[in-house]
Amino acid sequence: MGHILILYDSATGNIRQMAEHVASGAKSQNHDIRLKSIQQADKDDIIWCDGIAVGSPTNMGIVSWKMKKFWDELGDELWGKIDGKIGCAFSSSGGWGGGAEITCQSILTILINYGFLVFGVTDYVDKKMTLHYGSVVAGKPQSESERKSGNRLGKRLADWVSLLEK
Amino acid sequence: MGHILILYDSATGNIRQMAEHVASGAKSQNHDIRLKSIQQADKDDIIWCDGIAVGSPTNMGIVSWKMKKFWDELGDELWGKIDGKIGCAFSSSGGWGGGAEITCQSILTILINYGFLVFGVTDYVDKKMTLHYGSVVAGKPQSESERKSGNRLGKRLADWVSLLEK
Amino acid sequence: MGHILILYDSATGNIRQMAEHVASGAKSQNHDIRLKSIQQADKDDIIWCDGIAVGSPTNMGIVSWKMKKFWDELGDELWGKIDGKIGCAFSSSGGWGGGAEITCQSILTILINYGFLVFGVTDYVDKKMTLHYGSVVAGKPQSESERKSGNRLGKRLADWVSLLEK
Amino acid sequence: MGHILILYDSATGNIRQMAEHVASGAKSQNHDIRLKSIQQADKDDIIWCDGIAVGSPTNMGIVSWKMKKFWDELGDELWGKIDGKIGCAFSSSGGWGGGAEITCQSILTILINYGFLVFGVTDYVDKKMTLHYGSVVAGKPQSESERKSGNRLGKRLADWVSLLEK
Repeated sequence: MGHILILYDSATGNIRQMAEHVASGAKSQNHDIRLKSIQQADKDDIIWCDGIAVGSPTNMGIVSWKMKKFWDELGDELWGKIDGKIGCAFSSSGGWGGGAEITCQSILTILINYGFLVFGVTDYVDKKMTLHYGSVVAGKPQSESERKSGNRLGKRLADWVSLLEK
Repeated sequence: MGHILILYDSATGNIRQMAEHVASGAKSQNHDIRLKSIQQADKDDIIWCDGIAVGSPTNMGIVSWKMKKFWDELGDELWGKIDGKIGCAFSSSGGWGGGAEITCQSILTILINYGFLVFGVTDYVDKKMTLHYGSVVAGKPQSESERKSGNRLGKRLADWVSLLEK
Repeated sequence: MGHILILYDSATGNIRQMAEHVASGAKSQNHDIRLKSIQQADKDDIIWCDGIAVGSPTNMGIVSWKMKKFWDELGDELWGKIDGKIGCAFSSSGGWGGGAEITCQSILTILINYGFLVFGVTDYVDKKMTLHYGSVVAGKPQSESERKSGNRLGKRLADWVSLLEK
Repeated sequence: MGHILILYDSATGNIRQMAEHVASGAKSQNHDIRLKSIQQADKDDIIWCDGIAVGSPTNMGIVSWKMKKFWDELGDELWGKIDGKIGCAFSSSGGWGGGAEITCQSILTILINYGFLVFGVTDYVDKKMTLHYGSVVAGKPQSESERKSGNRLGKRLADWVSLLEK
């Protein structure tokens, strides 16, 4: 049994909702799951987890300053000591073309910097909806395909954590 | 009067159609406009233009190899000699979350490398459709908002070329 | 005469020093120049400037949370109202391969998001030193080529601002 | 025992030399190793490998068109069928600040697109030399720290492949 952390920063509730979809998908395997905002999480959660999904609003095309602050401030204590975990990303922007993919990429950059192995998902969850660099939605995640996208990210994270834990 | 080049690589016709939308938007100002595929264009078109919009399918999250080949092979003759032009990007991926934004970013990277000043567009052209890093669509650009997105990119390119030409 | 802002976040003094090199290069043209930290700058500086160079330490491969906070918090008042300015980036990482280029790219992403036209510099300032996506150094900017890199970024920014101001 | 592929495109011999350094580091574990150029490799090598290191020259800030062609043309047969492998990147640019980091990122983007789990290395191999997003050098990889950088990338790749193979 592995440990999965869904860590999010949410301003409007959209990212919180995505985080729940991701958590729901992660339950497909028999892992221990924590769903926490950056206000609730601390370094022990990061140490604890084998796999992480990090969600942030798309703010000016990259991760929110609050999420960035969380990771910047962990650096002194954790950086260089937690290599080899698994990571992925999710984000919501105001509209398609608004930077959610690039925001996911900025999250993956942070995770790679910390020594994580990061991934996206090749699957299409609907005719025109995929999550190659993380789960992305425009605005509130209210469509069925947007829900599925979050679910699939969590499921795949659970799959890869199982692979490492075997 | 400035010179605008719409340069595209199209495999399925989707990018060709986006290119026409961009060209149509670029006509909002009184510039001379060329719409060319990478098969039709050569280095003289690049030298000629003051502003360029570059379109490529999203292939594995970055620019197509054919579009890359076009720019790689121009390097010996043009690189370091054409700084200060204006550039922007457009792309279509199989679905939302499929990498069209990141592909636009890879096009902007090439243009920055050549010394271009590159831009995106802050405007929303519809409730959930914008083009902050270039115009992006999922699949065939058939919705009204997708058409508007291409138009707006062309219009903004024309605006910035006018600014430099004044 | 144009207005140039050198805006920086500095933790150790390295970025402050780079900012001075950039400012020094920007004086090559007859522009009005402001050199300010994010503690000293506010939205009026952003409105005032025609061109900006933004410098941040490389923190986990992207812009520092403090610099991000500066831009995130300006969003409500300025976003969508300051399109068409010129922008560029500079950063220092702990070592080569440490993410300074990718940090510059994250700064350019923020600036593109705000509607800026962004650029890098094709020139080599020394045998093995260039600044294609912004000026980058490893650690403290103490070599002659690192000083030149900052100077050249400022000079090019001044050139492009002159072009727009003509 | 796992399977490791070092896949490279080399125009001047620099990337070939880096590839050898990476291969040398990968031998630290008891894996089966193939060192192949894109002219020598084919889809069976990609299917065969558990982990891959992909090296390309920095051409206009992203992966060379030849390396891109290799992956674009594999898409029809392999895409969506090889998820869950491990990947990393290396590149050489003409100078520091020339785009080698961003080129590594473009390689990681391709690998993520194919469903790979990608990583960088937190370690410093020398006072001012690291490889957070892949191994990078300026020009020919001739310094001791540049050799070590390639070695370390290969070693870490071997470590992660062992982890998955256990």
